[in-house]
Amino acid sequence: MLGDIFYVEGKYIRDPVHGEIFIPDELLPILDHPYIQRLRRVRQLALAEIVYPSANHSRFSHSLGVYHITAHATSSLGTLAYALVHDAGHGPFSHLSEYALMKNGYKFDHETRLKKILPEILQNSVLSPREVLKAPENPLVTGGIGSDRLDYLRRDSYFAGIAVGEIAWDRIVRNVSVADGRLLARHKILPNIEHIFVSRFILGDALYFHKTVLIANEMFVRALKELLEYYKPEDIVKMDDTALINAFRKTENRWWSDIENRQLFGMVFRSADYEEARERFEELAGEHGEDNAILGERAAWHKPPEVIMEDGRTIEEVSPLVASLWETDRRRHYYFVAVRRQ
Amino acid sequence: MLGDIFYVEGKYIRDPVHGEIFIPDELLPILDHPYIQRLRRVRQLALAEIVYPSANHSRFSHSLGVYHITAHATSSLGTLAYALVHDAGHGPFSHLSEYALMKNGYKFDHETRLKKILPEILQNSVLSPREVLKAPENPLVTGGIGSDRLDYLRRDSYFAGIAVGEIAWDRIVRNVSVADGRLLARHKILPNIEHIFVSRFILGDALYFHKTVLIANEMFVRALKELLEYYKPEDIVKMDDTALINAFRKTENRWWSDIENRQLFGMVFRSADYEEARERFEELAGEHGEDNAILGERAAWHKPPEVIMEDGRTIEEVSPLVASLWETDRRRHYYFVAVRRQ
Amino acid sequence: MLGDIFYVEGKYIRDPVHGEIFIPDELLPILDHPYIQRLRRVRQLALAEIVYPSANHSRFSHSLGVYHITAHATSSLGTLAYALVHDAGHGPFSHLSEYALMKNGYKFDHETRLKKILPEILQNSVLSPREVLKAPENPLVTGGIGSDRLDYLRRDSYFAGIAVGEIAWDRIVRNVSVADGRLLARHKILPNIEHIFVSRFILGDALYFHKTVLIANEMFVRALKELLEYYKPEDIVKMDDTALINAFRKTENRWWSDIENRQLFGMVFRSADYEEARERFEELAGEHGEDNAILGERAAWHKPPEVIMEDGRTIEEVSPLVASLWETDRRRHYYFVAVRRQ
Amino acid sequence: MLGDIFYVEGKYIRDPVHGEIFIPDELLPILDHPYIQRLRRVRQLALAEIVYPSANHSRFSHSLGVYHITAHATSSLGTLAYALVHDAGHGPFSHLSEYALMKNGYKFDHETRLKKILPEILQNSVLSPREVLKAPENPLVTGGIGSDRLDYLRRDSYFAGIAVGEIAWDRIVRNVSVADGRLLARHKILPNIEHIFVSRFILGDALYFHKTVLIANEMFVRALKELLEYYKPEDIVKMDDTALINAFRKTENRWWSDIENRQLFGMVFRSADYEEARERFEELAGEHGEDNAILGERAAWHKPPEVIMEDGRTIEEVSPLVASLWETDRRRHYYFVAVRRQ
Repeated sequence: MLGDIFYVEGKYIRDPVHGEIFIPDELLPILDHPYIQRLRRVRQLALAEIVYPSANHSRFSHSLGVYHITAHATSSLGTLAYALVHDAGHGPFSHLSEYALMKNGYKFDHETRLKKILPEILQNSVLSPREVLKAPENPLVTGGIGSDRLDYLRRDSYFAGIAVGEIAWDRIVRNVSVADGRLLARHKILPNIEHIFVSRFILGDALYFHKTVLIANEMFVRALKELLEYYKPEDIVKMDDTALINAFRKTENRWWSDIENRQLFGMVFRSADYEEARERFEELAGEHGEDNAILGERAAWHKPPEVIMEDGRTIEEVSPLVASLWETDRRRHYYFVAVRRQ
Repeated sequence: MLGDIFYVEGKYIRDPVHGEIFIPDELLPILDHPYIQRLRRVRQLALAEIVYPSANHSRFSHSLGVYHITAHATSSLGTLAYALVHDAGHGPFSHLSEYALMKNGYKFDHETRLKKILPEILQNSVLSPREVLKAPENPLVTGGIGSDRLDYLRRDSYFAGIAVGEIAWDRIVRNVSVADGRLLARHKILPNIEHIFVSRFILGDALYFHKTVLIANEMFVRALKELLEYYKPEDIVKMDDTALINAFRKTENRWWSDIENRQLFGMVFRSADYEEARERFEELAGEHGEDNAILGERAAWHKPPEVIMEDGRTIEEVSPLVASLWETDRRRHYYFVAVRRQ
Repeated sequence: MLGDIFYVEGKYIRDPVHGEIFIPDELLPILDHPYIQRLRRVRQLALAEIVYPSANHSRFSHSLGVYHITAHATSSLGTLAYALVHDAGHGPFSHLSEYALMKNGYKFDHETRLKKILPEILQNSVLSPREVLKAPENPLVTGGIGSDRLDYLRRDSYFAGIAVGEIAWDRIVRNVSVADGRLLARHKILPNIEHIFVSRFILGDALYFHKTVLIANEMFVRALKELLEYYKPEDIVKMDDTALINAFRKTENRWWSDIENRQLFGMVFRSADYEEARERFEELAGEHGEDNAILGERAAWHKPPEVIMEDGRTIEEVSPLVASLWETDRRRHYYFVAVRRQ
Repeated sequence: MLGDIFYVEGKYIRDPVHGEIFIPDELLPILDHPYIQRLRRVRQLALAEIVYPSANHSRFSHSLGVYHITAHATSSLGTLAYALVHDAGHGPFSHLSEYALMKNGYKFDHETRLKKILPEILQNSVLSPREVLKAPENPLVTGGIGSDRLDYLRRDSYFAGIAVGEIAWDRIVRNVSVADGRLLARHKILPNIEHIFVSRFILGDALYFHKTVLIANEMFVRALKELLEYYKPEDIVKMDDTALINAFRKTENRWWSDIENRQLFGMVFRSADYEEARERFEELAGEHGEDNAILGERAAWHKPPEVIMEDGRTIEEVSPLVASLWETDRRRHYYFVAVRRQ
């Protein structure tokens, strides 16, 4: 029966995707920590809101959602804490600042940073960093059909307004288990698993790799390049979106002001061939100036999903549909050149 | 934590309103009983589908929904069983056959019938009729803000397609308790309670007492009157909708065939005054024949909701909004005369 | 601007999937025809409601939905009428009676029947059968990404409660056109088209070819076989679901009563090899009797979707994802044997 | 028919509330103006996201929604432009900065500011400020059941995740008209109108006047008081939320940092009597210091809705339900004292 849950003390938070999310008292010190609260001001989808105006939801609401789904799959406190904190290491604009730092020659990844700040986040908690990072059930969060993905697919589509991504996560979480650090899925949820990967793939085309978003992302890379003349990378990654935007404004960053006022470059060339694209870029950059042309990429992003069925076979072995995604994705890979509109 | 629920064996049923509904093994003999399965073929809203084509959902799905909400409020097996069976006594077309029998001079109510058939329904169950009908927590189902109402408001609006009735039932059920056979509500859910009663009231106007539905209902009363020349009331109430429609067709019931082919009477007169309406009816019936005119009523249906707040006051004392419904409803009461269109 | 639409006279019908559906006066004689009204009592998904209790929506609501989507794509009156009538030729339980008649040696298809009854349906209309059946824009309804499919995917998932099928049909219909009797799609909606075919495929596994539904379908084939001793096929196809169920009951059809009371056979064998399955069936039928075993099939149902992109290539050429469905589907093809549970 | 709309050129924007929003080319210069784009960074609900983490949607998406609903009610270009610009005069955090300036002795209202900046917004448009501000159909936007309200009720509940506010706006807009500068409503939509006002009232209690939000608002008033030592009011109102938060941080505003880190005051006293509350406040402020206590108000906010039915009566005359809101609201009026938690 469900009756037992009423005896745990805690807090209810309203979420448009999941209804009520219950956080037990013992996790509240983590939730209330400034490092987690900072995620309220970190956009989940960075610049996607340029194309989808309502897709300005935060990593904070996503973290709550990941926690909620995980709480239907396990009662391991370490894993539940991990669900809450797993994105705390992100820089401003989430993956985008990570990408832009890397393109500008700096190495940064949010998982390493999480390890660094986790002791501070847990300071008022009963849990140790090891109990959180190494909890045996963490694949329920991070796995190919883990709660991280189950939440973001639904959440991103809810806020963007794209009719994809309403995954039956309740059915999924009660049909997976963890064995040897990997997720095992029952055969009966095969259609649901296919649904996950296909939804993710379609959201890739429609949202994450939307042409206009890709252009804005490359403009952001340039914006950050100029910002790095004023700020150190280790200070940038601590910022929230608000602080980063302010830094751009304060340093009169032309690239950022173009992004903000939607003076976006126009795509003039695309090709699957890098050399071809680079040549075209150099030609146009030579003609119009370095600051008036960008070279970007719609990467092939699909990776083998690492989902194992209960009979030991991988999802690709069982589903030609999922297996096809690799080739479909590879064909959509392209490089592009975009230039400032006159 | 929520983990415990996974150790109970049972069955999951997909429901568009609530997602997955879990029925534990010990209640399956009740669910599978022909008297409960019969509810699959009893329309929740009788003839409302004439106006709202998709509102042909069944009492069976409603019963599952009531069970589901109740399972979030209590683990009392008696009350959970009561949630499943509470509507099993209904005749075909739910309340409408009850109303039509009464108008034709026969007394029938589904609660008395439930008492009669309950021993049979429970025959393969561990529960006795008394444990089900007298379970102390049953007000969680039947109360003014009980699960019966919480489900039907959402369900009826979901299938009719009316944008009213998405009640936050999860928040409500964890803020009510049973004391002395009555529901007690915490003050903090006052807006949610107001929402329930107002939604119900608005659905009354838009759906349950829609003008066209009222006319069809009165035509059904006449259809049943003729049917009673061939069938006994005690046999009619055992039928499901399919059997009743077949009985109408077999006896070449003209009233029913008019309903089925949407040859509905047109409303030509309405008044809050019964005498006035009756006079007009007699005039028109005299002129066109008894079979070409009907006299009906949009009843004042709002009853004091019997919800008590934790401080002992009734909801009407606390909320002028809820209190206003009585007067609003009274003003909408009217009698009408409708005649066959030429 | 949208203003113009307000000057057309007509009727609004509330639909939970599409909101308000507007039917102009000139199409009302078609909508009100008994052949179309009959579809209110023909289940869109036949016996799927055994597994998904709310999936008892009607072909009537689907027909309205197809009309609604079509009205966003064209103003051709012939095609709009076609959208309304396109399913009028269906027998009771839609495709299932067609399948069951075929399995019992009778040929029936709803498209041929539509041609036969169409003159009658159009009798009070300004349109001729030819103007309806041969309207140049009809591929907007029937095409691989036509309004028929766009509606049923969304509608079936809405009523079953399966989180698949919320297609962005508004975006799709304004990016397709008809050329030489075929639909042409703009390249920019490629992810939306992939979404359609994958949703359909996933609904196939979860709903249309659900194991329990397949078993019930084969039991229905047997039920119909016995019914054909009492009724002629040409009379059966005219029935609505209510009349057919009544015919089963009147003839004390054991197969039907088992379906109705959920005494469903259990699957004991499945194989991709027909001979193997047939042997097993014969063995079991020999042992337990012909009436206690059935042989059925989860067919490979995926057909090339016949969608052409604006550059002349087919969708399979452009999308490995869509192309993979053929092989994925083929692998799920199996034959099964099910027997009566003791 | 709907066909005509396809010949207008323009742009489609995806919105989770309304699906696709079409902006015709002639309005794009207005949409793209920096004053309108600035609304992307102005939160519709200011600090409500403290309680409802996903309620951080922008005035920009609301403006698009108001435009979309208006476009279903009229084709008047002036009114459509008005729908897009009607909120452009808002300061950061929308109504909250207006309230906080007023409480600190400065007069500011967004409508006056709109008049001032409108010529600039329209500079690349064919419309004059007069044609926009004085368009005869503007009551379709601003009226008691105008598109402004129809959008925000739905939008605020969508993002907060509160199950109230799904208004049938499509049905409403085709049953209202403008006469002598006022909205006239057909009697048949009375239940829909009641639904609007009750939804709004319930959202008031649950969201706009949530206790925690009221406390945060008063803390914001204090934060702004200190900020006014550094910035001029006329500069503050030009900021977007990002700039204002940065100004708070730069001046090391203690009140703001408490809001941001959720160190919110706790409510220790509430009373309908102002004098009583003021006395208690002074007592506590004397004891703990001015900076450790705040005096706030849950205002009576319900105003007569100014909706006229087609027979000339007001909505309050027709609906005791709507009329009751005034008294219900008046009873919920209170003053409160909150103090810094230790």
